[in-house]
Amino acid sequence: MVESRNSSSDSSLDQFWSRMPNALCEASDLLACKHLQGEFADKKPGEPNFLRGPYATMYSGQPWTTRQYAGFSTAEASNAFYHQALKRGQHGLSVAFDLPTHRGYDSDHPRVVGDVGKAGVAIDSIEDMKRLFEGIRLDGVSVSMTMSGAVLPIMAFFIVAAEEQGVKRSALKGTVQNDILKEFLVRNTYIYAPKPSMRLLTDVIRFTTSEMQKFNPISISGYHFQEAGASPVLELGLTLADGLEYVRAAQSCGLSVERFAPRLSFFFGIGMQFLQEAVKLRAARFLWAKMMREKFAVKSSEALRLRTHCQTSGVSLTAQAPYNNIVRTTLEALAAVLGGTQSLHTNAFDEAIALPSDFSSHIALNTQLILQNESGITGAIDPLAGSYYFESLTHHMITQAEEIIDTIEREGGMVAALANDTASGWIATQAAARQARLDSLQEVQVGVNAFTHDEGTAPELDTLSINLREVLQRQLASLHDVRSNRDEQRLLSSLTALEKACAKADEPLLEHAIVAARARATIGEISDALARGLGGRHSQRTLAPRGVYGEAFADKKVLSALRRSTDEFASKKGRRPRLLVVKLGQDGHDRGARTVAAAFADFGFDVDIAPLFQTPHEAARQAIANEVDIIGVSTQAGAHEALVPQLMAELHRCQAGDILVVCGGVIPPQDYKDLLQSGVFALFGPGSNLAQAADKIIKALQAKDERRNTSAGTP
Amino acid sequence: MVESRNSSSDSSLDQFWSRMPNALCEASDLLACKHLQGEFADKKPGEPNFLRGPYATMYSGQPWTTRQYAGFSTAEASNAFYHQALKRGQHGLSVAFDLPTHRGYDSDHPRVVGDVGKAGVAIDSIEDMKRLFEGIRLDGVSVSMTMSGAVLPIMAFFIVAAEEQGVKRSALKGTVQNDILKEFLVRNTYIYAPKPSMRLLTDVIRFTTSEMQKFNPISISGYHFQEAGASPVLELGLTLADGLEYVRAAQSCGLSVERFAPRLSFFFGIGMQFLQEAVKLRAARFLWAKMMREKFAVKSSEALRLRTHCQTSGVSLTAQAPYNNIVRTTLEALAAVLGGTQSLHTNAFDEAIALPSDFSSHIALNTQLILQNESGITGAIDPLAGSYYFESLTHHMITQAEEIIDTIEREGGMVAALANDTASGWIATQAAARQARLDSLQEVQVGVNAFTHDEGTAPELDTLSINLREVLQRQLASLHDVRSNRDEQRLLSSLTALEKACAKADEPLLEHAIVAARARATIGEISDALARGLGGRHSQRTLAPRGVYGEAFADKKVLSALRRSTDEFASKKGRRPRLLVVKLGQDGHDRGARTVAAAFADFGFDVDIAPLFQTPHEAARQAIANEVDIIGVSTQAGAHEALVPQLMAELHRCQAGDILVVCGGVIPPQDYKDLLQSGVFALFGPGSNLAQAADKIIKALQAKDERRNTSAGTP
Repeated sequence: MVESRNSSSDSSLDQFWSRMPNALCEASDLLACKHLQGEFADKKPGEPNFLRGPYATMYSGQPWTTRQYAGFSTAEASNAFYHQALKRGQHGLSVAFDLPTHRGYDSDHPRVVGDVGKAGVAIDSIEDMKRLFEGIRLDGVSVSMTMSGAVLPIMAFFIVAAEEQGVKRSALKGTVQNDILKEFLVRNTYIYAPKPSMRLLTDVIRFTTSEMQKFNPISISGYHFQEAGASPVLELGLTLADGLEYVRAAQSCGLSVERFAPRLSFFFGIGMQFLQEAVKLRAARFLWAKMMREKFAVKSSEALRLRTHCQTSGVSLTAQAPYNNIVRTTLEALAAVLGGTQSLHTNAFDEAIALPSDFSSHIALNTQLILQNESGITGAIDPLAGSYYFESLTHHMITQAEEIIDTIEREGGMVAALANDTASGWIATQAAARQARLDSLQEVQVGVNAFTHDEGTAPELDTLSINLREVLQRQLASLHDVRSNRDEQRLLSSLTALEKACAKADEPLLEHAIVAARARATIGEISDALARGLGGRHSQRTLAPRGVYGEAFADKKVLSALRRSTDEFASKKGRRPRLLVVKLGQDGHDRGARTVAAAFADFGFDVDIAPLFQTPHEAARQAIANEVDIIGVSTQAGAHEALVPQLMAELHRCQAGDILVVCGGVIPPQDYKDLLQSGVFALFGPGSNLAQAADKIIKALQAKDERRNTSAGTP
Repeated sequence: MVESRNSSSDSSLDQFWSRMPNALCEASDLLACKHLQGEFADKKPGEPNFLRGPYATMYSGQPWTTRQYAGFSTAEASNAFYHQALKRGQHGLSVAFDLPTHRGYDSDHPRVVGDVGKAGVAIDSIEDMKRLFEGIRLDGVSVSMTMSGAVLPIMAFFIVAAEEQGVKRSALKGTVQNDILKEFLVRNTYIYAPKPSMRLLTDVIRFTTSEMQKFNPISISGYHFQEAGASPVLELGLTLADGLEYVRAAQSCGLSVERFAPRLSFFFGIGMQFLQEAVKLRAARFLWAKMMREKFAVKSSEALRLRTHCQTSGVSLTAQAPYNNIVRTTLEALAAVLGGTQSLHTNAFDEAIALPSDFSSHIALNTQLILQNESGITGAIDPLAGSYYFESLTHHMITQAEEIIDTIEREGGMVAALANDTASGWIATQAAARQARLDSLQEVQVGVNAFTHDEGTAPELDTLSINLREVLQRQLASLHDVRSNRDEQRLLSSLTALEKACAKADEPLLEHAIVAARARATIGEISDALARGLGGRHSQRTLAPRGVYGEAFADKKVLSALRRSTDEFASKKGRRPRLLVVKLGQDGHDRGARTVAAAFADFGFDVDIAPLFQTPHEAARQAIANEVDIIGVSTQAGAHEALVPQLMAELHRCQAGDILVVCGGVIPPQDYKDLLQSGVFALFGPGSNLAQAADKIIKALQAKDERRNTSAGTP
């Protein structure tokens, strides 16, 4: 459903939609920045408000932690990858789970057939988790786990896997993402509704605060906002607004802020706006300390200090001329380091095309090793301090992020604001506007919409491809093993206890999940028990902003031509060309879907966005019921390979084969042939121009119409 | 010949040998920097002393010029490359000439058989120059020519090529390097002795000042100092010291400094010391303006303003894991941009292995295009201004560079200092010390001496390989054409006039060279006429510092073991193992030769460095006469392919096949097999550990000795 509100006319928000204003750049202007005055006067690194860095010696004593996010297919394959990464000089581990795991489904659930082991590793039970860390002592390496939806079973598996290694929970180091609010805003790998989800989140904080004091119970994540289209300052504001909500939630269930705040960690994306990204972490630290002091009367340095992991931007990478991405990732990594990050993931250059290969992962890690060992950058502690430009840019970013936070706070905090679609509306608006700037060449991406001359004979990419069938077979076998070797009585009583515990607000749920994990309950079984106790699985509508794309699209002639074509279609057919944008399977990344919907609505199409997580069967039924002309499948996580042919078959089975099906998103070149053969009309890879795509689609609709008329006219 | 002076004990120079001290980093310290006080107080960009940038708007109005240095094989091949680069978005051209051209030899000269078309394009005559710019109007694009030795014939060819395109000399835009002093210090592509060379240099300045006012008659070059081993601050000091000498030379022949100074341009290398490199250009601009004002009473902004081209560092690139070089070049490019360069060359990632391929050249250019178009960096004007760290680092760099300049000035300026080997001694010392730090793991190069685990399956490199024989055939044919289609009488009289003009100090020589170029004189003929008039070709000794490597080598056990081995050899044989380090052909890059000589002397070898530019025959004769045990061939420009087999054949012909021959330097992997088959004992590519190389060589000498003893004892 395309929102009717024309967000871009809401002028109070313009300033953090647009790029940052040119910063002041003279000494006299610098003095006007309030953070250099009074309470917020220039301090040394390691002193609150930590503008200049969370620690006094920063990297001169010890560099940031290189921590590459990785995981794919099976626990065994990911385990081998981790062993190699540690051997190559990586400091910590960071686990990527597959989408069924995120969404709390066992690998044999009928809704996840296209997603098992695709975008991360499949973990169905404690046995998979044990295999994941085979030969890696869990008190010897810090482990970051990107998990928010199914945080309870995954934490339980992790703790029990350690137990069975002989490692106490108190010795576990690392971080669990456990940031559910951003899932509702952008990434959509939630399972339960916002309120029960918040309960799970605080449950984890409470548990780790008392039992796992070296472990960060939450990684408050901005990264996904930026990936979804937010500018650095919007990312910053929303992340800190989420953070406030988490602190309040934890506080409201009796935790002391002074005590748990030191274990909060943050996670930011670092994109291509080098100057803004270089100051974003400075602004984040400053603002967080300020708010913690002002809103929660926090006093200790440890509780005021914002520590963060960063990841270079996935959305800044291009599928075209992929080696250019090494350049982009290097600049982004440097910006994170200038900002003073505590740990860093650098993306592999082929990630816009496929899962990172062994080679591309190595280059990504080397990017950090070169920065640490060859550039001399670790010798300087906040080299940006005092710079007229960077200090005043920091000041602007603080001021604008504060406005964003204040807006959310006025709506009652992030949980309340979810209902209004405030934050996700801003993000979708920025995403649509950026796409329009790219499509109308106001913004340049080298090798994509400019400088696209042949790039010489690039070495062929040896991308990683997962044998989906094999992975699925292994997971099914492993599930079968687990299910046939457990004490059913013990299992059932543990799951019942978990379900019942949900009814009592103060009952600690993670402890119950641990008992279930020990009893070999699977991730699906634990998630279902929780669903029964917490009011079921959640679903929500996907909205897209209207008018933003058209307004930001600079080439008005192109826009008018497209609108004329859809007007013609409408005058002939009595209705506008109708597009259903669908996501299939468990992939909830909806930037593409929202942006396509926004753009096509502005081209004059009648656009609906289907509910997330549809099966091909469901998507086909909705398309037929709505009499759409086009289905646009947006795919980011690889499930198209299995699910799109099913969608095509389903349409044909229902005599709806004349609906035009197009796919857009991350589609590896080797998948093109099969998809086209299955009857897909066109594929639009990353970097596609939406105006050109629309033109191609309208022309195809016109041609189809002519053919129909001609054949109707033939005797 | 290894110098006996132990330079590292010369404590007054320690500070610019060692790395820069950790810069101050507090606001209070910043105020102590003298450039923020009095005459040198903080100014706006575009105002003298130009600390904050040569222009007020910098890149916000117009980005730096992307100018990739390129040229190889024939004029036709290079011309095609230039056309493609311009199509891909490059702004200006930069011509790389081959070594015979630099040294003023025609392609058919017997001394240059291995070098024609190898490290640049072969230009023998005006006809080659015309083909080089076929289809490129010389008033439409600015052309930079890296030429110092044979500057007169090359400028003459360029001007006449333009003439024959119908372009007036006054319309020509660009730069000729014409920086002869650094040739005597490090690069060695001089032809004549320093004094007559300085006359040619001022001749070009005089000519362009009156005739070609859009053309920069000199590019005062630090790049080669850094390539030869100088730290950024030593590079800076020596470059500006050269600049002073050039200004004085031009002034002494009657040119007004106010008038010609605005057309001086500079050229710096940008290496991996990111923080220092980011401030080096700021320091350079400041110091140059200060000296121009103080020493020459220069007043106009134009004459005080230092403008510069930069190139990322070749020596920072590694042959191992070459894709890592994309990361290095990106960091270096950013440092150049933060410093405020006017134009930039970014190296291709495979340059430590071979000539750049079409693909690697494209990535190199894209590195700049991404910085210009995607990073937002062009929006900020001197973002480092005011930074405690960067401003005080700038201050340190200014202070230390001034000390270097003062030392050279006290010796009477750079021409006088050449005789003392002062500057080249400093550079060789820094080069040897750095090699020792790398060899003893005090300094890390990722993928070379650390983090050398397998890098996954890297895509195979498609490096550019020149068909030497074909290039030579084309050049010979073209020379034959030129020589058979010219008016011999006109030619002879033009060359005689040129030679005679040399005798009169004020006679303008470039005008005479232009007349000869029009008469189709070749580069060799013009260079020989000048040689006859200017006192012949110059040669000079290559020295290496003693004691520096050993002192900087941290692992004293390894060092002692090597010394014990050479002591044993000496006690058995009555003399130390004897190494002759040779360079073959026209390649004058002697960092490797000097560093190897320095290291092996400290290991206890008896080391000589042969004169530069030897033929294989000459090298063999010297080795046999000196009764050496090992010949070490240092090769950077590809001539090993042709010349090393000749050396081996010559040794065998003279029954000296038992001399151990090793090769080190830039040797493409595909050359390994042929070299080893020709009898070379071992190859040491870039990144080789010299201590390990010495160990291998000593063991081979011992084994040879044992074999000899055994066979002597056999009946």
